[in-house]
Amino acid sequence: MASDQVKLIGAWASPFVMRPRIALNLKSVPYEFLQETFGSKSELLLKSNPVHKKIPVLLHADKPVCESNIIVEYIDETWSSSGPSILPSHPYDRAMARFWAAYIDEKWFVSLRSIQTAEGEEEKKAVLAQVDEGTAILEKAFIDCSKGKPFFNGDHIGYLDIAFGCFLGWLRVTELAAGHKLLDETKTPSLSKWADRFCDDPAVKPVMPDTAKLAEFAQKIFAKPQP
Amino acid sequence: MASDQVKLIGAWASPFVMRPRIALNLKSVPYEFLQETFGSKSELLLKSNPVHKKIPVLLHADKPVCESNIIVEYIDETWSSSGPSILPSHPYDRAMARFWAAYIDEKWFVSLRSIQTAEGEEEKKAVLAQVDEGTAILEKAFIDCSKGKPFFNGDHIGYLDIAFGCFLGWLRVTELAAGHKLLDETKTPSLSKWADRFCDDPAVKPVMPDTAKLAEFAQKIFAKPQP
Repeated sequence: MASDQVKLIGAWASPFVMRPRIALNLKSVPYEFLQETFGSKSELLLKSNPVHKKIPVLLHADKPVCESNIIVEYIDETWSSSGPSILPSHPYDRAMARFWAAYIDEKWFVSLRSIQTAEGEEEKKAVLAQVDEGTAILEKAFIDCSKGKPFFNGDHIGYLDIAFGCFLGWLRVTELAAGHKLLDETKTPSLSKWADRFCDDPAVKPVMPDTAKLAEFAQKIFAKPQP
Repeated sequence: MASDQVKLIGAWASPFVMRPRIALNLKSVPYEFLQETFGSKSELLLKSNPVHKKIPVLLHADKPVCESNIIVEYIDETWSSSGPSILPSHPYDRAMARFWAAYIDEKWFVSLRSIQTAEGEEEKKAVLAQVDEGTAILEKAFIDCSKGKPFFNGDHIGYLDIAFGCFLGWLRVTELAAGHKLLDETKTPSLSKWADRFCDDPAVKPVMPDTAKLAEFAQKIFAKPQP
C-alpha cells in the first residue's frame, strides 16, 4: 500500500523538483512523472497546491504533499525501511542538515538566482561576490557535517546533499553565463570533489539535467524581449 | 545526560523565542533563559549563530541549535520519551504541520508585521485584507488538521499549534493598534476558540506575554523618530 499510486507533478529543469526525484530513486519507489509545461499551470497542479500553485507536488494515493524539502522528509518517513535513511539519525545532525538546507534556499540560492538578472558589471560583480561568500560558508559546513566522509550526510547522499546538489546543474549554467567559477578546486576544494561524487551517484545521474540542454532552456526563459 | 546544560538565548517579547520555550515546557526540560538586550547582540549570540546572528539559539551541552522551528523539532527528537510528542506521528500529518508552519512564517507573519509599518489608510487597509485572507486560509487548515479535536495537533498542542500560537500576543497588540479584529468568532470561529485554549495551556501560560506590556514594548520599537 505504501508505494501505491505515486505521482510527481514537476518539470525536468526545476532544481526543486529534482529533490523528490532523487529521494524516490534512493528509496527505489516507482512513480509517474507528470510534467508541467513552462509558463502554464495544469488544473491538477492548481487543485493539488492551491496555496502556492508551485511544483513539485507529490501525490501519494491522491493525497498531495507540497514544498520540496517537506516532500523529501515525507518520502524518508513513509518508505523508512526501503533504501538508506535520507535524514541523519542523530537529532543534532538532523538539526544541522535542516539548518543548512534552509540557508541554501533562503540565502545562497537567492543570490545565485540574481546573477541571471543583475544589470550592469558593477551589480553583477557584487552578486558574484555574495554567491562566493555563501559558497565559502557551505565549504566550511561540508567539512563540519561530513566529518571526513564523502557526503554531507556521511557515507551516502542524504537530505543536505539533495538540498544543495539539486542546484549543481543551474550552478554550471550560471558559471558559463557569468564566466566565473563558483565551485573550484582552489576556493572550494571539498565541495568541488563532493559535486563530482554527487553527480555520479546512481540516484542522481538519471535526473541531473545535461548542462548544454539546461543552458539552452535558460537562454529562453531569461531572454530579454527585443525592443 | 540528555537534559544536561540546556540554555536558551532569547528575549521575552520574541514570538520565535516562545517556540522553544513552549516545547521545553511540554517536555519538562529545565533551562537557563539568557535574555538579550533589545538593540544589541551579545558575544555569546554572535559566536553561537554566526550565520544569522539571530535569536533564539538553544545551547545543549554547549552545542548551538538555531532557527525556532528547527529547535522545536530538535527538542522533540532529543527528549522523545518525555512528555507528549510535538510532531504528529503519521508522515502525512507531519508533512501538513511542516507545510502550514512554513506558510505562517513566509506568508501570514510577513503580512501581519507589515501592518505596523504600513503608511497611510489605503496601504493599511490593503495589508489588513491580506492578513484576513491568510487567517481565513488558516481557519480552514485548522479544520483539516485538527479533525474535530481541540488543537491543530489533535488532543494536545504540537508543532503547528506552537508555530502559529507564538504570534497570538503580537496579534492582539496589532488588533489594538489597528482597531481591527483579526481573530473573531464570526470570521474565524474555530481559530478564535483554539486561541483561548492555546493560551490557557500550562506549557504556554507562563511564557505568553501580557498584552499591555507587549503593546508598551511595541510602541517603543515602532516609535517614529520625532522631527
